Amino acid sequence: MTVTRGAGAGGVGRQLVSEPIALLGIGKIARDQHIPAIASSGAFHLAATVSRSGGIDDVENHADVADLLTARPDINVLSLCMPPVPRFDIATAALAAGKHVMLEKPPGATVSEVLKLERLARAKGVTLFATWHSREAAGVAQARAHLRDAQIKHVQIDWKEDVRRWHPGQDWIWQAGGLGVFDPGINALSIMTAIVPNPVHLTDATLSFPENRDTPIAADLSFAGPAGMTVDAAFDWRQEGPQSWNITVDTTVGQLRLTDGGATLHIDGMAQTCEGPGEYPGLYHRFAELIEAGQSDVDISPLQHVADAFMLGRRTTVAAFHD
Amino acid sequence: MTVTRGAGAGGVGRQLVSEPIALLGIGKIARDQHIPAIASSGAFHLAATVSRSGGIDDVENHADVADLLTARPDINVLSLCMPPVPRFDIATAALAAGKHVMLEKPPGATVSEVLKLERLARAKGVTLFATWHSREAAGVAQARAHLRDAQIKHVQIDWKEDVRRWHPGQDWIWQAGGLGVFDPGINALSIMTAIVPNPVHLTDATLSFPENRDTPIAADLSFAGPAGMTVDAAFDWRQEGPQSWNITVDTTVGQLRLTDGGATLHIDGMAQTCEGPGEYPGLYHRFAELIEAGQSDVDISPLQHVADAFMLGRRTTVAAFHD
Repeated sequence: MTVTRGAGAGGVGRQLVSEPIALLGIGKIARDQHIPAIASSGAFHLAATVSRSGGIDDVENHADVADLLTARPDINVLSLCMPPVPRFDIATAALAAGKHVMLEKPPGATVSEVLKLERLARAKGVTLFATWHSREAAGVAQARAHLRDAQIKHVQIDWKEDVRRWHPGQDWIWQAGGLGVFDPGINALSIMTAIVPNPVHLTDATLSFPENRDTPIAADLSFAGPAGMTVDAAFDWRQEGPQSWNITVDTTVGQLRLTDGGATLHIDGMAQTCEGPGEYPGLYHRFAELIEAGQSDVDISPLQHVADAFMLGRRTTVAAFHD
Repeated sequence: MTVTRGAGAGGVGRQLVSEPIALLGIGKIARDQHIPAIASSGAFHLAATVSRSGGIDDVENHADVADLLTARPDINVLSLCMPPVPRFDIATAALAAGKHVMLEKPPGATVSEVLKLERLARAKGVTLFATWHSREAAGVAQARAHLRDAQIKHVQIDWKEDVRRWHPGQDWIWQAGGLGVFDPGINALSIMTAIVPNPVHLTDATLSFPENRDTPIAADLSFAGPAGMTVDAAFDWRQEGPQSWNITVDTTVGQLRLTDGGATLHIDGMAQTCEGPGEYPGLYHRFAELIEAGQSDVDISPLQHVADAFMLGRRTTVAAFHD
C-alpha cells in the first residue's frame, strides 16, 4: 500500500509497496506482538521507533513524537503502544500533524479524550483506528455471524488469569488510570460487544481493590440487554494453574462457546474450524484497509462499560497484592 | 400546548391548552421543584403521579409506571424524578409506550443506558429531554454568550456544600450508583460544559471515600482543553457555614465569575443583570419547546466526565460519615 499525501493530510493510494510505519512505546506488547505483526505485514515496514528507554536493533529510534515528526516527515502512519495515560498527548500531536494513527487498547485513559481524538482525526481527514485485538481472535467473526439473528438469553464471561504471569512488573496497570483487571477484562468486553447484536448496559458491579493498589484485582459485572437478556462477567487476576478466557452464549436454540480468548469456537458442543491471520496481523491488515478506504474505526463501547463499572460499582477491599 | 397523536407516537401540535403531565418519583426534588414549576407552567398541568410511598393531595396517584400507562392513556408527557438507578426501566417503559420523557439529572446510573434511551426515543419518534437544571440558572446563558469567542486560560470550580443540609437522610446518594459528591458536582460540570466552547477531558482526579460509604464525599478534578487551557474543580460535601457554588473563568482579556450556582454573574468584577424564569420553570419551558419541535436534548458530557473521574481517579479513604 502506498500512502500518498492528500490535501494537508496523509492520503490514500493503491497497494503497490509497503508503507513506512513508526511504532511508539517499545514495551512488552510492542516486542511480543506489534513488531512481529509488522514484520509479517505486506502493507507496512517498521521504519522508526519512539522510546525513551531505547528502541530495537537496526531501527532508528527517536526520543519523543516531536523528534520523530521533525526527523521523518515521510512517515505517515504511526502505531501507539504506550500505556493509556500518556497516550492522548502523543496521539493528538500525531493526528494534528496529519498522520494516520492506530491505538493499542484501551484507546485512552478516559472516554472523553477518545471522543476528542475522533473529532480531531475527522477534522484532519486522517484514519484513527482504536484497536481491540481480541476482536481479531480466530473465532470471533464466525461467532458474530452466528449470533446476528439469534435470540440471546444469557452470556457468561469468565476471564481469569494470573497477573504475575501476564503483567510481570507492569506498575502502570496498578496505578490510577491503569484499569487493573479491566486491562484484560476489556478484551472480553470487546468481544462481547462485537458478537452480541444489541447494545447492553451495566446494571450491577462489584470491584475488588487490593488494599495497597489503586486499581481492582477482580470484578464481577452484570449487564442487561433487550427482552430479558443478561450478561454476567467475572474478571479475576488471582487465577493460578489453568487460565480461563471463555465466553458462553445461551440462545433460544442452542449454545455458542468461545474459549482461549476467542481463538476456539464451539457451537452446540461441536468444534468449528476457525482460521485467521492472528490477532495483531489482523489489526495491521485492518489498519491498512481503513487507510485505503479513508475511514476511521473508533468504537468506545468496551471502555464505556469499564467507566460505567467504576462509576456504578461497589468497591470492596481485599488482601494486598505484591508482585 | 396540545400534544396530538402522530403515527404511533405522541405527536406535536400547537400551543392551545396546557397538556396533562405525569410526575414519577415523589421525593424531595419533586416536592421542592417540579410540582411548583409545573403549577406555574402554562404548558403543562399535573394530571397524575407515580409513587409507592403515596402521592400528593388532590392528584391521582399510581403505584407504578405500568399502572399509569394503563389507566391514563391520555397522558403523553412524563417527567421522571426518581434516583438514577431505578430510572432506566421506567424510562424505557415510558418511551416504548410512545411517551415524551423528561429525566432529572443525572440522566442515568451509567452512560451506556442513557445512550440506549436516546436510541429508543429516536426509534419511537418521541422527545427525550435529559435535563441539567443548573444550565437554566440565570447567569448561564449570558456567560456562554460572553465566552463563545473567548480564549480561556483557566476555569476554577469550587462546589462545596453541607451534605447534611441539602441531602438529609437521602441514603441512595451514598450507595453505589448514587454518585456521592458528584450529585451536586455534576451541576457544576453541566454549567462548565455549557459555557466552555471547546470540549475538555479529565487528566487527573482524586476521590475521597468515607470509610463507611460507597460514594465519595469529596473530589478534586483537573481537565485539559485546547491551547493549554485547564479546568480545576474542587467538590466537597463537608462545607459548613457559607456554601460555595462558584465558577471563575480567566480569559486572555478578563475574568468571568458565576456564583450562587450560576444565578449571579460578574464580568471583570461588574455585576451583570441576569433574568430568567428560574431553573425548573426554565426546564419545563424547554421541554415544551422540544416536544413542539419534535426534538430531543440528550447531552451526556457531564455524566461522561463523572464516569471518567471514577475510572481514572485515585481513591483515598477518609473519616466515616454519619448523617
